[in-house]
Amino acid sequence: MFSHKKELQFHSKPERPDPMYAKKLQEILGGQFGEISVAMQYLFQGWNARGDAKYKDLIMDTGTEELGHIEMISTMIARLLDDAPVNQQEKAAEDPVIGAIMGGMNPHHAIVSGLGAMPENSTGVPWSAGYIVASGNLITDMRANLNAESQGRLQVARLYEMTDDRGVKEMLSFLLARDTMHQNQWIAALKELEETHGVTVPGTVPREWEATDFSYDLINFSEGEESKEGSWTSGKTPDGKGEFGYVQTPEAHGGKQDLKPAPSYMHGAPPSEGK
Amino acid sequence: MFSHKKELQFHSKPERPDPMYAKKLQEILGGQFGEISVAMQYLFQGWNARGDAKYKDLIMDTGTEELGHIEMISTMIARLLDDAPVNQQEKAAEDPVIGAIMGGMNPHHAIVSGLGAMPENSTGVPWSAGYIVASGNLITDMRANLNAESQGRLQVARLYEMTDDRGVKEMLSFLLARDTMHQNQWIAALKELEETHGVTVPGTVPREWEATDFSYDLINFSEGEESKEGSWTSGKTPDGKGEFGYVQTPEAHGGKQDLKPAPSYMHGAPPSEGK
Amino acid sequence: MFSHKKELQFHSKPERPDPMYAKKLQEILGGQFGEISVAMQYLFQGWNARGDAKYKDLIMDTGTEELGHIEMISTMIARLLDDAPVNQQEKAAEDPVIGAIMGGMNPHHAIVSGLGAMPENSTGVPWSAGYIVASGNLITDMRANLNAESQGRLQVARLYEMTDDRGVKEMLSFLLARDTMHQNQWIAALKELEETHGVTVPGTVPREWEATDFSYDLINFSEGEESKEGSWTSGKTPDGKGEFGYVQTPEAHGGKQDLKPAPSYMHGAPPSEGK
Amino acid sequence: MFSHKKELQFHSKPERPDPMYAKKLQEILGGQFGEISVAMQYLFQGWNARGDAKYKDLIMDTGTEELGHIEMISTMIARLLDDAPVNQQEKAAEDPVIGAIMGGMNPHHAIVSGLGAMPENSTGVPWSAGYIVASGNLITDMRANLNAESQGRLQVARLYEMTDDRGVKEMLSFLLARDTMHQNQWIAALKELEETHGVTVPGTVPREWEATDFSYDLINFSEGEESKEGSWTSGKTPDGKGEFGYVQTPEAHGGKQDLKPAPSYMHGAPPSEGK
Amino acid sequence: MFSHKKELQFHSKPERPDPMYAKKLQEILGGQFGEISVAMQYLFQGWNARGDAKYKDLIMDTGTEELGHIEMISTMIARLLDDAPVNQQEKAAEDPVIGAIMGGMNPHHAIVSGLGAMPENSTGVPWSAGYIVASGNLITDMRANLNAESQGRLQVARLYEMTDDRGVKEMLSFLLARDTMHQNQWIAALKELEETHGVTVPGTVPREWEATDFSYDLINFSEGEESKEGSWTSGKTPDGKGEFGYVQTPEAHGGKQDLKPAPSYMHGAPPSEGK
Amino acid sequence: MFSHKKELQFHSKPERPDPMYAKKLQEILGGQFGEISVAMQYLFQGWNARGDAKYKDLIMDTGTEELGHIEMISTMIARLLDDAPVNQQEKAAEDPVIGAIMGGMNPHHAIVSGLGAMPENSTGVPWSAGYIVASGNLITDMRANLNAESQGRLQVARLYEMTDDRGVKEMLSFLLARDTMHQNQWIAALKELEETHGVTVPGTVPREWEATDFSYDLINFSEGEESKEGSWTSGKTPDGKGEFGYVQTPEAHGGKQDLKPAPSYMHGAPPSEGK
Repeated sequence: MFSHKKELQFHSKPERPDPMYAKKLQEILGGQFGEISVAMQYLFQGWNARGDAKYKDLIMDTGTEELGHIEMISTMIARLLDDAPVNQQEKAAEDPVIGAIMGGMNPHHAIVSGLGAMPENSTGVPWSAGYIVASGNLITDMRANLNAESQGRLQVARLYEMTDDRGVKEMLSFLLARDTMHQNQWIAALKELEETHGVTVPGTVPREWEATDFSYDLINFSEGEESKEGSWTSGKTPDGKGEFGYVQTPEAHGGKQDLKPAPSYMHGAPPSEGK
Repeated sequence: MFSHKKELQFHSKPERPDPMYAKKLQEILGGQFGEISVAMQYLFQGWNARGDAKYKDLIMDTGTEELGHIEMISTMIARLLDDAPVNQQEKAAEDPVIGAIMGGMNPHHAIVSGLGAMPENSTGVPWSAGYIVASGNLITDMRANLNAESQGRLQVARLYEMTDDRGVKEMLSFLLARDTMHQNQWIAALKELEETHGVTVPGTVPREWEATDFSYDLINFSEGEESKEGSWTSGKTPDGKGEFGYVQTPEAHGGKQDLKPAPSYMHGAPPSEGK
Repeated sequence: MFSHKKELQFHSKPERPDPMYAKKLQEILGGQFGEISVAMQYLFQGWNARGDAKYKDLIMDTGTEELGHIEMISTMIARLLDDAPVNQQEKAAEDPVIGAIMGGMNPHHAIVSGLGAMPENSTGVPWSAGYIVASGNLITDMRANLNAESQGRLQVARLYEMTDDRGVKEMLSFLLARDTMHQNQWIAALKELEETHGVTVPGTVPREWEATDFSYDLINFSEGEESKEGSWTSGKTPDGKGEFGYVQTPEAHGGKQDLKPAPSYMHGAPPSEGK
Repeated sequence: MFSHKKELQFHSKPERPDPMYAKKLQEILGGQFGEISVAMQYLFQGWNARGDAKYKDLIMDTGTEELGHIEMISTMIARLLDDAPVNQQEKAAEDPVIGAIMGGMNPHHAIVSGLGAMPENSTGVPWSAGYIVASGNLITDMRANLNAESQGRLQVARLYEMTDDRGVKEMLSFLLARDTMHQNQWIAALKELEETHGVTVPGTVPREWEATDFSYDLINFSEGEESKEGSWTSGKTPDGKGEFGYVQTPEAHGGKQDLKPAPSYMHGAPPSEGK
Repeated sequence: MFSHKKELQFHSKPERPDPMYAKKLQEILGGQFGEISVAMQYLFQGWNARGDAKYKDLIMDTGTEELGHIEMISTMIARLLDDAPVNQQEKAAEDPVIGAIMGGMNPHHAIVSGLGAMPENSTGVPWSAGYIVASGNLITDMRANLNAESQGRLQVARLYEMTDDRGVKEMLSFLLARDTMHQNQWIAALKELEETHGVTVPGTVPREWEATDFSYDLINFSEGEESKEGSWTSGKTPDGKGEFGYVQTPEAHGGKQDLKPAPSYMHGAPPSEGK
Repeated sequence: MFSHKKELQFHSKPERPDPMYAKKLQEILGGQFGEISVAMQYLFQGWNARGDAKYKDLIMDTGTEELGHIEMISTMIARLLDDAPVNQQEKAAEDPVIGAIMGGMNPHHAIVSGLGAMPENSTGVPWSAGYIVASGNLITDMRANLNAESQGRLQVARLYEMTDDRGVKEMLSFLLARDTMHQNQWIAALKELEETHGVTVPGTVPREWEATDFSYDLINFSEGEESKEGSWTSGKTPDGKGEFGYVQTPEAHGGKQDLKPAPSYMHGAPPSEGK
């Protein structure tokens, strides 16, 4: 069960409106690695967690925080849209800057939301739950989380470069900090879990299920041998169970990809007989 | 530039047809973490890589291999669909097993593809490029890759549980092995990169951009303190730059979320005056 | 800013597992009018509300409650999935009921989420933010909300018919009750707003913008005159500004739909010359 | 069965081309509440209507009219695209206005449709049938319809503000008028239906299905009591069956959200034992 | 402008209900090549056609007919859903056939549409305008149309195999016939157009735009030379402008795919220097 | 199984960066008829082909080539993004050209991919497998392929018009050439197949399945008789089995579209009784 407080977790006030930047900021709200994604990803992981109280609580702490981040960024976007020149056709004819803003902002911000944030990314694509993951396996989900916070912080850093507004930069500085924490906490949790369960996910696969001849070799499918120079072609593997190898020339271990003729009730053409 | 060989990388022959299992197998072909996802993710990462020859080659080696895995699983699905009883209404009336197959298989396998694989997941949703990531930052992309191979191997293990067919299990044993390698190689690459660039992504953010007061504290947004027991609330942080802390009671550092009244040209209702 | 309590708003325990019903229940979690939709719709409306404190608070109260409903239904789905017979191929061969469950459950519940809820609807389509609306105009958004709660309660009623499990029915009885409240509250709010601003949205359109000759006539585009018998073809209109009329035979007031020939740089074919 | 007349329902000729406005106009063609949405929503409601001849005919009259509105807006878009400067790179280098148009128009209008309308919204997202609703319950569908016409008219009003072209405004004045009628007719129909069947949808739920203790209380999930001041916290409820109440402090009526440990065949990690 | 007649273009009455077949029939209503696709594709092509009256009229004739086909199939689906056993849990426990129907039908048909057709395909994915094409070039659009009618008729033939219901087969026999006509008419139109404008689309590309050394050779990218045996490796090409050739060994005409190092403001890692 | 060579199939170097053109070029990479579409379409057709070695090989040759085209265009996009002025706010204030570029480029190119190609179209919509087709019927799939190459070449021609960069034009000249070949090869293959199997797909439908009274008539659903002037209203039909006819006035051969009242367990309103 959730409750809501009207104060924001952090300041979210730009120095001045900037409708074109509002469009860009949508990426970290409703994009693949925006705040909706991390909030929903963590909440679903938390709700689906079976046992494991400390991890479940950690995930719920973080997921609930992210709901407040959606709120902060939505607030910032609405404020960046204040006074957007959506009906200043005449001025636009004289002033190319106004014209550029009218043409360059996200049309949804004027037509659909009436100067409010949209649940979509920076190109206007609606957020999709197809972005998130909650697999019931904590190790891999922690990896997903670490990736999400890394991609997210990278995008925040790029957006930081793209504005001179001190108010916007202040909010981004807070997001950079929280993403630092979230990366570090997922790394810490991951370390605990990998120490117990091993680094290869899932750790519960019996050895006899696996075609172990193929478990530790890099195969050179892209001509050129630059990749041979890395730490992944010789020496002990990170899971401690094998030695890395390198296969110079990829080999086909299966037969030709051919299929039985189609039955007539599938109405393929031509019938395969006689070919 | 690519070239194709008609032999498969590994055997892909079931002992017997099983249209209902073919539906399930679509998940690792066209699902969020299926082979289309990893192939496209690695290829886009490789094509977008700027410099860094050994990583780029490693990524291209692996992405090219995954194209061959799409092929293997597509082949297996087509073979599992052989002799699907799509037009045996009369038998179905007598034999509930045939009825169940006719009702339980993916209708696309009969109506749309004519007993071939579909570029979609196990519930019939078409594959979307919204699943993949190629950010131009190698560390976070390696994390995305490690997650993808972990989610993928987890799904293969679950599918392994769900069949008794030795031919299917043999192909899955090969996929388990390759996913073992791919997890280990991404871990190895990640270790190299993190040693040079630090674990917090991106490592290039100047300290003064960040509101460092908030960089290392877990905030207790979900009542109950189970999460306090983890390695993420005290001690040195993995990035080596801070000490973990724990905030018992979340605090709001921003003001109330309120916005300026809407301008009349946005036709909101009611006008905010006088409220 | 949000906080989370680990207790659920209401009981969410089925009498017994039922994986096939878990698939159906996904509709009111991640479907077009499921709990994710109403939570996100209300929160975005609240965040985007400009002024209007009592409406904004009402919306935030309700949006925050709906987050807790996502949690309740997710919990119920996970419990309905307990002991799902995903790897009982042998039993299935003997017992058609087990076979039907293995074939009839959502494959994602086994392969992707590991017996947890998915952010998707009952056919396995991921939730999309394209479902929701927050327009900045409170009257129409209240209408959207009233519709959402009506569609939602209708779906709950249908799902109530589809199970005999008393635990499931108990949770649904709570959702029916809350949807009753939410419908009633949106009706009450709407009444207040319509009294002030009129029933035609937006109430701020100047009369001279509108081709008022066409503002109050039903036009008979579908042959047969059954529709003439309703309260919408004569008498005062609900907005109090006109009289309903009925146009027996639709008239075309615009010219023929024809366009200028395409310019050659668009490479259409055939060139329109000579027409 | 349908038939088509080549004359448009209303004029659809702009004074002059305007490719950037053509992009915006796509919203009311292929957006969430554009003409494709209302046409398809009404037609599916009409086709699925069981009995109820006068409502079914009303819906079919309106759905068929909307097909003609898609046509009018498509025509307008095509005309706004006439002479679009898609290949005037040289002029653009000199004239920033031409440059802005080349950059600011929807690229699909040049590359994909060859100066014709696209079935997509103002950000270029293709129309999705996930937008529409036809539930088989007339009351809630009328609410959906009333919302759709309200959102639609709001968007038309906003677009009216965003152009000075008299031809465009003339077409929009017609759409404003028809949306006035459609809002009024759905209100009239809704009134008839609610009088017979009550305002809480569906009216057919037996009282004993509902946890009526929770049917009429607003619960204060968002701190602050502004919402207490509305007409929804005291007095008779609109359905005439209860009294509104207000719950100051939300209460959790369910136990803790915890789940049984995952079975080993789901390959979760870590196993929950001993946590 | 359109008008509607309540009689159907053809009979649409099954002998008996069949909810599982209703699910399958959704493919030709709301699938990639279903009736919604062809209706919308033709109407958009017609509305966007610039000049060319006889082709435009042909396209509008056909698009308008397809609207009536959506109606016929929707009607059939609704009738196949009559008496669907959605609430017969008790009977299902005894009778595996009823259980199979309850599990095997599309859940939307019960929960969302109340026994009506849905605007979605046979796996429950909503129709998307991303399926259709209206390019402004008549020749290629005729090819798209010919393909759509061919895919559609193929799917109808497969569905014909999958039922014994004479009423359903009768409706399908009509669709087979109309698809025969539509294939033939598009072939006839295409022949006219190709005779004037050539077979390579677009026919307006000046020869000097094209790297003609590569215009007529098949390149052997997939090992094995089976493809050499076709009519596409020697002899005059269908466009009459070249001779087919065959390239045994693919050649790379471009340099290595390498990119400039990323600028620091993109925060890639590692920096490319020194690699 | 696939292998990769680091050299590109053809040059892919622009004369100078152009971020706004990079956005447009995404259409032929990740749009409906972009290179991802043709690569995936052909590969799935090839993998699903049952028998028919020469066609299968032809399809695999071509699909494998298209993988290399994705690579070429991705490379070009990355190079067009070099030195994109994403953080030059100050210069933009002075120089409208820089401002236009910052506003007019695809925000993903800066925020998400870090100056790399995205798997999406020119409006930023991610590629979807819902675009492609592999039906198991070679004739209709060849028609799909011919259409795809025609739409693709049309889009390349339009993009050729939209740039003055000789490097970009050189790459496009190669794509024009390969699309010429691919159109010609599919026409040749189609001719072979149609000669054997007839032009109406599928050729395997027994005559008695079809309501042949309706197989060869154009029906005049759009008022006006321009369409009567074409080659599709009289004379022998292309399939050689009928004579084209023309129906002046469309006739309804089915009864009224009416349905049985809804059962009470569907909770429709109003109940249909007494209507």
